[in-house]
Amino acid sequence: MINLDELNQFVRAEIVPLEQRFLQDGFGAVLPAVEHVRTMVQQRGWWCPPMPVNLGGMGMPLTEFAHVSEALGRTPIGHVCFNVQAPDIGNMELLHGHGSTAHHADWLAPLAAGRTRSCFAMTEPEFAGSNPVHMATLARDTGDHYEITGHKWFTSAADGAAFAIVMAVTNPDAAPHLRASQIIVPMDAPGMTIVRNIKVMGEPGEGWASHAELLLDRVKVPKTNRIGAEGAGFTLAQERLGPGRIHHCMRWIGICERAYALMCERAATRALAPGRMLGEKQSVQHAIADSRAEISAARLLVLDAAEKIEKRGQREARIEIGMIKYFVAGVLQRVLDRAIQVHGALGVTDDTPLSYWYRHERAARIYDGADEVHKNVVARHELRKFGLDVRSEA
Amino acid sequence: MINLDELNQFVRAEIVPLEQRFLQDGFGAVLPAVEHVRTMVQQRGWWCPPMPVNLGGMGMPLTEFAHVSEALGRTPIGHVCFNVQAPDIGNMELLHGHGSTAHHADWLAPLAAGRTRSCFAMTEPEFAGSNPVHMATLARDTGDHYEITGHKWFTSAADGAAFAIVMAVTNPDAAPHLRASQIIVPMDAPGMTIVRNIKVMGEPGEGWASHAELLLDRVKVPKTNRIGAEGAGFTLAQERLGPGRIHHCMRWIGICERAYALMCERAATRALAPGRMLGEKQSVQHAIADSRAEISAARLLVLDAAEKIEKRGQREARIEIGMIKYFVAGVLQRVLDRAIQVHGALGVTDDTPLSYWYRHERAARIYDGADEVHKNVVARHELRKFGLDVRSEA
Amino acid sequence: MINLDELNQFVRAEIVPLEQRFLQDGFGAVLPAVEHVRTMVQQRGWWCPPMPVNLGGMGMPLTEFAHVSEALGRTPIGHVCFNVQAPDIGNMELLHGHGSTAHHADWLAPLAAGRTRSCFAMTEPEFAGSNPVHMATLARDTGDHYEITGHKWFTSAADGAAFAIVMAVTNPDAAPHLRASQIIVPMDAPGMTIVRNIKVMGEPGEGWASHAELLLDRVKVPKTNRIGAEGAGFTLAQERLGPGRIHHCMRWIGICERAYALMCERAATRALAPGRMLGEKQSVQHAIADSRAEISAARLLVLDAAEKIEKRGQREARIEIGMIKYFVAGVLQRVLDRAIQVHGALGVTDDTPLSYWYRHERAARIYDGADEVHKNVVARHELRKFGLDVRSEA
Amino acid sequence: MINLDELNQFVRAEIVPLEQRFLQDGFGAVLPAVEHVRTMVQQRGWWCPPMPVNLGGMGMPLTEFAHVSEALGRTPIGHVCFNVQAPDIGNMELLHGHGSTAHHADWLAPLAAGRTRSCFAMTEPEFAGSNPVHMATLARDTGDHYEITGHKWFTSAADGAAFAIVMAVTNPDAAPHLRASQIIVPMDAPGMTIVRNIKVMGEPGEGWASHAELLLDRVKVPKTNRIGAEGAGFTLAQERLGPGRIHHCMRWIGICERAYALMCERAATRALAPGRMLGEKQSVQHAIADSRAEISAARLLVLDAAEKIEKRGQREARIEIGMIKYFVAGVLQRVLDRAIQVHGALGVTDDTPLSYWYRHERAARIYDGADEVHKNVVARHELRKFGLDVRSEA
Repeated sequence: MINLDELNQFVRAEIVPLEQRFLQDGFGAVLPAVEHVRTMVQQRGWWCPPMPVNLGGMGMPLTEFAHVSEALGRTPIGHVCFNVQAPDIGNMELLHGHGSTAHHADWLAPLAAGRTRSCFAMTEPEFAGSNPVHMATLARDTGDHYEITGHKWFTSAADGAAFAIVMAVTNPDAAPHLRASQIIVPMDAPGMTIVRNIKVMGEPGEGWASHAELLLDRVKVPKTNRIGAEGAGFTLAQERLGPGRIHHCMRWIGICERAYALMCERAATRALAPGRMLGEKQSVQHAIADSRAEISAARLLVLDAAEKIEKRGQREARIEIGMIKYFVAGVLQRVLDRAIQVHGALGVTDDTPLSYWYRHERAARIYDGADEVHKNVVARHELRKFGLDVRSEA
Repeated sequence: MINLDELNQFVRAEIVPLEQRFLQDGFGAVLPAVEHVRTMVQQRGWWCPPMPVNLGGMGMPLTEFAHVSEALGRTPIGHVCFNVQAPDIGNMELLHGHGSTAHHADWLAPLAAGRTRSCFAMTEPEFAGSNPVHMATLARDTGDHYEITGHKWFTSAADGAAFAIVMAVTNPDAAPHLRASQIIVPMDAPGMTIVRNIKVMGEPGEGWASHAELLLDRVKVPKTNRIGAEGAGFTLAQERLGPGRIHHCMRWIGICERAYALMCERAATRALAPGRMLGEKQSVQHAIADSRAEISAARLLVLDAAEKIEKRGQREARIEIGMIKYFVAGVLQRVLDRAIQVHGALGVTDDTPLSYWYRHERAARIYDGADEVHKNVVARHELRKFGLDVRSEA
Repeated sequence: MINLDELNQFVRAEIVPLEQRFLQDGFGAVLPAVEHVRTMVQQRGWWCPPMPVNLGGMGMPLTEFAHVSEALGRTPIGHVCFNVQAPDIGNMELLHGHGSTAHHADWLAPLAAGRTRSCFAMTEPEFAGSNPVHMATLARDTGDHYEITGHKWFTSAADGAAFAIVMAVTNPDAAPHLRASQIIVPMDAPGMTIVRNIKVMGEPGEGWASHAELLLDRVKVPKTNRIGAEGAGFTLAQERLGPGRIHHCMRWIGICERAYALMCERAATRALAPGRMLGEKQSVQHAIADSRAEISAARLLVLDAAEKIEKRGQREARIEIGMIKYFVAGVLQRVLDRAIQVHGALGVTDDTPLSYWYRHERAARIYDGADEVHKNVVARHELRKFGLDVRSEA
Repeated sequence: MINLDELNQFVRAEIVPLEQRFLQDGFGAVLPAVEHVRTMVQQRGWWCPPMPVNLGGMGMPLTEFAHVSEALGRTPIGHVCFNVQAPDIGNMELLHGHGSTAHHADWLAPLAAGRTRSCFAMTEPEFAGSNPVHMATLARDTGDHYEITGHKWFTSAADGAAFAIVMAVTNPDAAPHLRASQIIVPMDAPGMTIVRNIKVMGEPGEGWASHAELLLDRVKVPKTNRIGAEGAGFTLAQERLGPGRIHHCMRWIGICERAYALMCERAATRALAPGRMLGEKQSVQHAIADSRAEISAARLLVLDAAEKIEKRGQREARIEIGMIKYFVAGVLQRVLDRAIQVHGALGVTDDTPLSYWYRHERAARIYDGADEVHKNVVARHELRKFGLDVRSEA
């Protein structure tokens, strides 16, 4: 258990003050300070809450971690201070649930301890991310080894990672959903190259805060590096989505709450003319009121989904998991847009975290499946209740 | 306790089939059938759930009745079949909480029993409804009596009502919020005239389903007809708002769910061409997916507000009570609009209830305070937390 | 030429005052007054401007009539006073362009003179209106005659019409776009029945202001009643769309301008409290400012389309004709919605024309092809320029 | 006259290919190539079209330059290649219209020739930009000189500029609109410091593509450096707005058209699965169709405003000048958002110019007066026609 008031106070006192260093000078510049905070977090016993105690975590259930993820989401470097940042936490959950004993010892333990970082290489530039069974990276079976060749991008946090979990086709002749496997590939394996940190929304970033383009040219790894069964790659990718969605959405709620507080504070303290405050304008009041209602509704929807995952399992909750993706991403974008508008010129500078989120969370409507895809999935599920089975999406 | 599955089944089997009579021919035409359903409701022990048992009700708490109100909201004549229709249920709650013993015997008992109907006369055509302390109807104190003169409109359900609760100025020299009182006025009192049932959105309506313009010309009523203290009219009006808001919002959720089901059913069964169904269109799927997420979020927000009212009292929950007004009204309008669009030409006919709701629930963004007013209230409350006290709304 | 200032003044002085009679009591009640205005219009030489002089009109080109249609659109009964109301003006244009000499004498002349009314029977309840080649009404060739059997609805203004132009399949084995023909059917032909005036948005209406459901049971008409070639029905229907779209869209612009003026007037004259006017609220000001910009932009887009039709022909202008449909319909709905909100309770009554338009122009996004269909058409046309030929719409 | 087809071809062939250098490596990296293009532009006689021939320009009227500005707007470095980039072109127009003979020789001539750059220092961090008469920078009259002290920010393109035109209070006791003057200040004047290039939306930028924070500490300039009369600063600032608005809005239209073309091209060429193209999705088609209509309408609205400025003067066209600000900025943001969504992950990278515009044109709704301010101005003007004079904005 983490007391949320204490946690929020910790975030305000210890992490938010580091933000400007990150926003102005990048991840490398703030990293020493982040490491210092990580030590404080471990001392308080708050380290990596979703991981089990034997891995240094707290064994915290999803519905409880949801609130922690919100609290950490209030600053762009919150999650990384608690070692629950994407994609590492997702990789930890995957390895914990489906990795072998050797995987646990070699890759999971140091990752959970925060001694290494990792990445997840799935998306390919030549194929639409909205169709995850459509890829070209091939893992050729050479007996004891796979020889992997392919082209990936948007491999977040590859820069400085110890290993990648690579989605690659191992069974090219199987049905589309049974073709790929997930394979652990050390980043220093011969043939594995970071082509570039892609310049995304104005900055290539560095370290954890980056998105790489990778080339894999006949990279050899032992077949024991495969996670789970051969051909299970897509199924495992689906499985990480449920809890991951809750993490993400609650992080977005945290962003929303921070943007909301910044907006209210600006409105309450900025003078338009002597004695006439910005917050007296009805358009500003409506930006506040609409945001307040939307954020509160969004949080309830996410918590409801988390509860359903816990009570009924991910499969039964898949509509809820789909809905929160596009609903919360929409709220996030509107709240950030309003907060920027209320800040005026200050809002487009990097003197507040609003610009960072406005830029980098634009992708919230795109990654993990574009909103349009999730809407199709939800609607087709609903239509089946009324007797229509839409096979080919339109 | 009402089993919700049974209730939904009852609504589908007994009330929905009466809808077309109401939509095509009006309230008078469907009234005999409604009376028949009311008898069935009483026999099942489901009568007027929020009223106490000694008044024939079930003493049902707000958080539980919320779900009942949703179930009844799925048809325009659901609430009236359970004697929980506005404005009667609000008047019952007011009389129950603040009426004298005589009021209980004379007015509340027959109302709760469904033997009479009532109305609530507050809005005046010459004054903005968004400013409820601004009115001209005057109750002159003549010793034992009040002599009331004024002009009211949007007095819903006045046609056929036994009495009106009239908001009138009794203390013209008091502070604005302390000027008015609420007074019971029999509809057959000399000087009380229904000028017309206002033609609203294409129909004047009749009986319960109408909105009257009233003239009060020196209407005499005993001072004992006043509810609560002199000058308490505005305070009492505020008090009825909290539970009333939950009733309304859950009714709107019920409307949304019905519209949603109609939309899905149409999408699943309407052919665009042989073998090509409407529901295969992505724009229709997105209408469904957006509606599903918005309705679910809206319901959670209303239930959360109801819980806060019950746990912390109406005063502490006033932000939540304000938020659900504009948030749910917005969802309601969008869902109805999408459901109509998916129905095409059928959607604008009165062959479904969609047109009725599209027309008559347009007022949801206006009555009980326009959305803009509630947004101002919520924002000003929030801004106070940040140190800004906005007095005059802008 | 019609001087627009004079025309606007005429509409304000002679037609707008009749509006309330129409809105409260229906088309029959206002008809005598409309007939009186029609006489005045003829005396001024303003009768039926798009028709040629020999038919009593003015031979006015489309780009000029566009402005007239806007001026008349400011009141629901404007067009009918000038004998340019839909569907009659569309039928006149069709008969004038493609009718035989006998059609001109028998049907067009009395119609253009305003001595008769007509209707256009195309839509069928069992088939999606968005797919106009999909219909069941069959005109069986019996030698000299067609024997027509079918089911139509949304046949606007059938009540009291002298004849219908009926779209019916004459060539069931032809390609889909070549199956149907347009055939003149007298309303008093044996076997032609008006089942009902459909109750649309709260009212069945009457006379010109109605939408009928029709049954044709082996209705016999001479084959000479067919307009144009056998199988040309769909092509002729397309052809009427271009000028008809301009008429409709400029009428919508007229509605927008009237709603805008009502909104401004209400904002400028309604007190929220002594000395504090509604128009001082920023939300009201933004409703006005957004509407002003959208209406002005919409008008320019329609006038640009009209010019392209005149200069390059309807085929070359088909993207413009498609775009104005959904763009202007969207503006129309938003402007009406804002005008109602600014009016508060008054806005939902029929004491202004806002409610009438809010209700009956909801269909603007549905009739003549739902907005979604036109968007698909525009996009597919644009995508062809980039090398993608989308055949089956998604 | 510039042939627009030739111009568009030139932009495509000579400027667009330089874009990636600018987007990936910054303004300094692309500057040599830009200088080369500038020489080509001069050779073609297309240099700085709005300036008169004797200053090396073409003396092109506003309505004609509007189309040129659109063509150049299709790439972020288009305007700078023709020496018509903000803020220089605005400064040229100001100096040309109101500068002394000495100003023309010393500052305007080299600026128009492209040998220098300039900036415009108006906004101050401590004061709301939406209230331009509210500022603290003071120009103290010391006889022959002004001694200027103040704090400015968002002084675009200050980095590398030869001079700034500084708005400073010269008459602190005058009425608010008569307090300030515009004064030419060489950037190398003692006491003038660039504190930083503000990091805006992820990048501090450099050279022309930057926004500086400036400190003026008792900067001395001769009083002859003042442009126009003492206290005329605000009036001159207003005057530059009209043509400047047309330049900006047509540049935005150019951005929209480029984003639209990129969106269509992506939709037409990106496969979702073998043989199934992105452009077959209805949601993509609707993004295209909505954008096409909105861009076309926006262009017509801007051209109409330009024509009104030319025919009736800026004062008579001020509503049009206000409307296009918020209308076109809204279209710009929506079109960019849709284009990014259609591009998926590629859309958030800097591999296309979409990210640059998404980030840097977010300010379009803020600079030159936030949209909210322009809406208030338009509405108040409209309300005056209906008899309401709103003095204090709400």
